[in-house]
Amino acid sequence: MKTLRLDLGERSYPIHIGAGLLGRPELIAPLIEGTRVAIVSNETVAPLYLDRVKAGVGGFRPLTVVLPDGEQYKTLEVLNRIFDALLAARCDRRTTLIALGGGVVGDMAGFAAAVYMRGVPFIQMPTTLLAQVDSAVGGKTGVNHPLGKNMIGAFYQPRGVIADTDTLNTLPDRELSAGLAEVIKYGLIRDAEFFGWLEANMDQLLARDPEVLAFAIERSCRNKAEVVVADERESGVRALLNLGHTFGHAIEAGMGYGAWLHGEAIAAGAVMAAELSRRLGWLGDAEVQRIERLIRRARLPARAPAALSPARFLELMSVDKKVLAGRLRLVLLRRIGEAVITDDYPRAALEATLQSVREAV
Amino acid sequence: MKTLRLDLGERSYPIHIGAGLLGRPELIAPLIEGTRVAIVSNETVAPLYLDRVKAGVGGFRPLTVVLPDGEQYKTLEVLNRIFDALLAARCDRRTTLIALGGGVVGDMAGFAAAVYMRGVPFIQMPTTLLAQVDSAVGGKTGVNHPLGKNMIGAFYQPRGVIADTDTLNTLPDRELSAGLAEVIKYGLIRDAEFFGWLEANMDQLLARDPEVLAFAIERSCRNKAEVVVADERESGVRALLNLGHTFGHAIEAGMGYGAWLHGEAIAAGAVMAAELSRRLGWLGDAEVQRIERLIRRARLPARAPAALSPARFLELMSVDKKVLAGRLRLVLLRRIGEAVITDDYPRAALEATLQSVREAV
Repeated sequence: MKTLRLDLGERSYPIHIGAGLLGRPELIAPLIEGTRVAIVSNETVAPLYLDRVKAGVGGFRPLTVVLPDGEQYKTLEVLNRIFDALLAARCDRRTTLIALGGGVVGDMAGFAAAVYMRGVPFIQMPTTLLAQVDSAVGGKTGVNHPLGKNMIGAFYQPRGVIADTDTLNTLPDRELSAGLAEVIKYGLIRDAEFFGWLEANMDQLLARDPEVLAFAIERSCRNKAEVVVADERESGVRALLNLGHTFGHAIEAGMGYGAWLHGEAIAAGAVMAAELSRRLGWLGDAEVQRIERLIRRARLPARAPAALSPARFLELMSVDKKVLAGRLRLVLLRRIGEAVITDDYPRAALEATLQSVREAV
Repeated sequence: MKTLRLDLGERSYPIHIGAGLLGRPELIAPLIEGTRVAIVSNETVAPLYLDRVKAGVGGFRPLTVVLPDGEQYKTLEVLNRIFDALLAARCDRRTTLIALGGGVVGDMAGFAAAVYMRGVPFIQMPTTLLAQVDSAVGGKTGVNHPLGKNMIGAFYQPRGVIADTDTLNTLPDRELSAGLAEVIKYGLIRDAEFFGWLEANMDQLLARDPEVLAFAIERSCRNKAEVVVADERESGVRALLNLGHTFGHAIEAGMGYGAWLHGEAIAAGAVMAAELSRRLGWLGDAEVQRIERLIRRARLPARAPAALSPARFLELMSVDKKVLAGRLRLVLLRRIGEAVITDDYPRAALEATLQSVREAV
């Protein structure tokens, strides 16, 4: 097991990464605050891992809340089911919520914890690669709105993250690839050495070599933690973590939440960001090809869907949270390993990118 | 005009109290952050004061969101209408929300600001006595759940409070009295001198003497600000502000939100707290009578409704946020001007109180 520490003063917390962690009560117990525990999971993950976690918090006889599985259920209405269950069971402020699942469960349980009785403690137990390397770390929580992704939410840090790499054994291939999109992202925005390592180790990652996976998770979490410590509430550098996300969110919303996985959408979005960076003269053809090749090797889409016209794409992008005063800011690449956020690009270059990085109709 | 300052480090803010303030752009402008403004109000207040505020923020051409009026609309569903409107108008993170109305509007607009795009700035412009002396100050925001009041919310401070006492001229008598319940509360829990002043000045308050009202508002805000500065997130003394609230919330929920005004319910609740304190030997008969007399003079109910049986009352109280580990903590009175929070009272004394402080059936 490796333990990183996310250092945010009195809100600091540990990130434990390793095999078999869900069955280790001595890791979980110090993170529980209060007198009750409620586990939020989904109908895919609960049959696989709920019993293990229940055993790990045995003394608390936890309440469990099982949500439907999928991005399309990350809504205010489904969030309310968590409140219904907590209130029906008379859970008070001294209840610790545990998020057991992927990014959707983590975002929703975290947001529920942020606002239930104006805030109760919570623990992240991510069971997908995407959640382990990205969404479970850093305190972004929230739900989607029909007009935009993650539009309603809070910055709310967990008391700790327990990433049990054994849970990746049951992860569908498609979800593994989706997680790799966020892993590749860290290489692109701030860790060129890691990008090279990913090029050398992509086959072992796809073969789920446990040591190779564990290294990728730890390195990703380390990158994420450094960025979050520097800028918890995204007033500056944290926005760089959104490489590919403004494009990706438009794909997710435009295709209907759940049709494309988040990781798939941001993979295509990262290629779009790279292509726009090339058009600005920042990346060369060879670099864009390296990026595209690694994304394809990770079995991820490198093109936006043909079904979304560039005009519709622009419309969807315009409600992004990174729009400031009507100007759409994008995360672009100066080179592999260095990202910038900017609204200073020709509109024509963006439109040409939307047209060219698109599946053939 | 009087200006108090709520001192919370970088989240400090001014509370302006006086006549004609809504028409003074120079007070409002420094509180606006970003490039857009959205005013949240309700269908009672908007026809009276919306134009005045719009003129005050003229340059911003504000979006307005008008909600239905009443505690029964303080729900997650109605909250979502604020998000719908903000997103449809493409309001980004640099949008300042203004809450123009009573406690319900302030709590909902404040909560919307806390979670819209994970947090945007907001300004409180309270137009009821209750909001001016209590709910607009201190950063408690949220909505109700069918199983309990204010169960979903956040601590989120405004950038400033502008309490225009002219708005009290249009306030219905019943709402004026409801606000006086919170004013009396400050005297009871921490300001015996103010309690005496209220006994001497109740007739002028009911006659809406502007200077007497302004003094009561300022003194109340000062009391509130001192408590919030000492304990922003209610881990200690702030809970004392909830005198009468655990009883009162049970009345509001039990009778159906909106049937009793919040201030009415907590007035009866304060008498119940006083009676239980008497049964513990802390207050004498004469003090309980003084409290009850002042509440009746403010034209407030001093008895719980006959429709709520003591058994149902206990059930409703058991979901209160102040329940810790199954023990119901109550704010009680050591004397007029000094409150304590305790779960150390005989259950029988509570039951006798519920029976005796109740309208004749």
